[in-house]
Amino acid sequence: MKQVKAEIVAVGTELLLGQIANTNAQWLSQQLAQYGINVYNHAVVGDNLDRVEEAFLQAQGRSDIIIVTGGLGPTDDDLTREAFQRISKLEMVEHQATIDKIEMYFKNHTSNMTPNNRKQARIFKGCTVLKNNAGMAPGMKVELEGKSWFFLPGVPREMKRITTDEIIPFLRNLTGDAQMIKSLVLKFIGIGESTLEHELKDLIIAQSNPTIAPLAQDDGVVIRLTAKGSSEKQLDELLGKTKEQILARVGDHFFGENDQTIEQVIVELLQSKNKKLAAAESLTGGMFTEKIISVSGASSVCPGGLVCYDTKVKQNILGVAEQTIQEEGTVSEACAAEMADQIRKKFDSQIGISFTGVAGPNEIEGQPVGKVYIAISDANGYKKVDSFLFTGARFSIRKRASIKGLEILFNYLKS
Amino acid sequence: MKQVKAEIVAVGTELLLGQIANTNAQWLSQQLAQYGINVYNHAVVGDNLDRVEEAFLQAQGRSDIIIVTGGLGPTDDDLTREAFQRISKLEMVEHQATIDKIEMYFKNHTSNMTPNNRKQARIFKGCTVLKNNAGMAPGMKVELEGKSWFFLPGVPREMKRITTDEIIPFLRNLTGDAQMIKSLVLKFIGIGESTLEHELKDLIIAQSNPTIAPLAQDDGVVIRLTAKGSSEKQLDELLGKTKEQILARVGDHFFGENDQTIEQVIVELLQSKNKKLAAAESLTGGMFTEKIISVSGASSVCPGGLVCYDTKVKQNILGVAEQTIQEEGTVSEACAAEMADQIRKKFDSQIGISFTGVAGPNEIEGQPVGKVYIAISDANGYKKVDSFLFTGARFSIRKRASIKGLEILFNYLKS
Repeated sequence: MKQVKAEIVAVGTELLLGQIANTNAQWLSQQLAQYGINVYNHAVVGDNLDRVEEAFLQAQGRSDIIIVTGGLGPTDDDLTREAFQRISKLEMVEHQATIDKIEMYFKNHTSNMTPNNRKQARIFKGCTVLKNNAGMAPGMKVELEGKSWFFLPGVPREMKRITTDEIIPFLRNLTGDAQMIKSLVLKFIGIGESTLEHELKDLIIAQSNPTIAPLAQDDGVVIRLTAKGSSEKQLDELLGKTKEQILARVGDHFFGENDQTIEQVIVELLQSKNKKLAAAESLTGGMFTEKIISVSGASSVCPGGLVCYDTKVKQNILGVAEQTIQEEGTVSEACAAEMADQIRKKFDSQIGISFTGVAGPNEIEGQPVGKVYIAISDANGYKKVDSFLFTGARFSIRKRASIKGLEILFNYLKS
Repeated sequence: MKQVKAEIVAVGTELLLGQIANTNAQWLSQQLAQYGINVYNHAVVGDNLDRVEEAFLQAQGRSDIIIVTGGLGPTDDDLTREAFQRISKLEMVEHQATIDKIEMYFKNHTSNMTPNNRKQARIFKGCTVLKNNAGMAPGMKVELEGKSWFFLPGVPREMKRITTDEIIPFLRNLTGDAQMIKSLVLKFIGIGESTLEHELKDLIIAQSNPTIAPLAQDDGVVIRLTAKGSSEKQLDELLGKTKEQILARVGDHFFGENDQTIEQVIVELLQSKNKKLAAAESLTGGMFTEKIISVSGASSVCPGGLVCYDTKVKQNILGVAEQTIQEEGTVSEACAAEMADQIRKKFDSQIGISFTGVAGPNEIEGQPVGKVYIAISDANGYKKVDSFLFTGARFSIRKRASIKGLEILFNYLKS
């Protein structure tokens, strides 16, 4: 495999004004690193034709793969096409499939399509169109004098989608068979990055092939194993052996691989056990149920849930006893336990889970901000209430509580 | 004042591997913008002497103020000094005050100072030392052939501290009173970027002070106005006048300014009208209620909500009539309307909103993926059901439905 140099060029004045950070470049760099492609430069330039052209000329001179984000939208300050035309002399044509898609969108939204929307359908003649399954403007791949250019929208959701669907297969191809690279991401919940690293310290120090990289994420910790080899079989053996060593030490916290999410794993466990789950959420306000229902196929295991933010809803709709609330308070072990029982019964489910606590900014019933009770209850009489004191701001407390709920539920289901 | 061009060069392989985002450049850009200094480029380069030199040469050629972050630490891959020496031919000397500070630190921590720590005290002969009140290595300011170079550590805390203490006074001096800058962000919902731009085209073309920049965001569109002037009063007048012109055309879609979110505005409107809101969510699965409850203070206006994903929950808990479901289906105008009525009554609220539809991947009751009904109902007999056909994947459909619900609710509340 030829050692290629990659560069990421971001176009957009909002980056130069500091309104957003260049997280697109970060994400793309992670993807490229995973396929063994070296990124040597990031460049950011504003919505100015001369300066975008200058950045493109430089990239063409020094890099083999150039990924451009931004400047493909419908408005007049979207200048990526024009700037690349200057250096490539390529003609622009309208992409009929995109025009059809835009027209359909406006038809479905019963609003008028303004003329500037057609601009999003303009592509370089002879380019490879990169399908955008998350938005209007397609991406493009253009070969220019031996250099590969990829043009992507700046909206992160669309950029990521096109990259995953269209660019990664290209990169996988590029790195070829001579030097194959394969990654395996092991996912953990309920263990911190530093503890994980401590447990695996000697393995990490001795690593060479595969490399072992722990990485903290929003909802847990992952370890990315990256192996190099000459065949799929060799790669799988290398990865499998290291995975085994790692799981022998921290397997208790392992829940899945690669793109699997903890909510997917939970939905699959519920399906295989043929059990239904419902949640009664106070401080989490729907965040937990929303995670479960985000999984395609969740309808078979989650009939719904209740957001019982107000005490009256806990009492009148959920059916928590007035006495419990008056004697123990809503932020209490007893209330959490009753909430879990009640939601399970009301929603005709085998498993009930509940969240009650103090998201802040103020104390409730003398309980401090961050105090959270999570209860789980099942139809066979199992009942358990855990309490936590989370730190951080309102959003962070609510999020941690939701993720802790997923962890508790996962541990219950796998046991 | 001379119109200066600024550039931010970040040195560090961790940025090119995507391990961190370049938030230093974002923060510095915000500071520079505030003092009316135009940032024309961000560059990121790894810990490689040749490539750092290349980036520095380019910056010296095209920019007047160059801020370099990173590469000043004690380890061998910290190469900023060496690279700048190559282009400036400046001698390096030891900064005694820094040596003293480092020695004191190690003495206080009763640990041994390894030799590489002395590296942090090496400065360019004749530079202005920028005091680091948050760490060891000082910053430096160097004048090279009419260009001003600032060297800062990559650790955000230290970078920010030196900038605030030492660079901002310099910038303030540079721009003087003659040039101040102020931004105002106007936020819109229910209008696309292209339509917004179409409506404002002549204003955008004629723009000079303030500049007018539309930008699509995940949950709507914003317009950023940036004014330059010589006094706070002049800036406010310039911004106010342009805001007025814009709102005269697209004010129907305007909901807030700067950091305000649509959910905050909705909670404030509910509070000022002293009304409570509850949502019955099928396909959105709690996403809408979660947005409302994310706002601090939402407890006074949102008692909770119901996720009624399953038909039985719609019927038994929410109380939608069996006849409606059998005759019209759950994905229907009639069902949406009843859901909104019922949730309002059950949750003792003045306003009910409901979401029912097909998130995919499969059709429901012969309705296509993306079909969504959103109903709103109030205690005074107001009732309205809107239907939509959203495109995209499961998550995207559910998210668009939630945001559309916020838009519908906002329009209802402000009228």
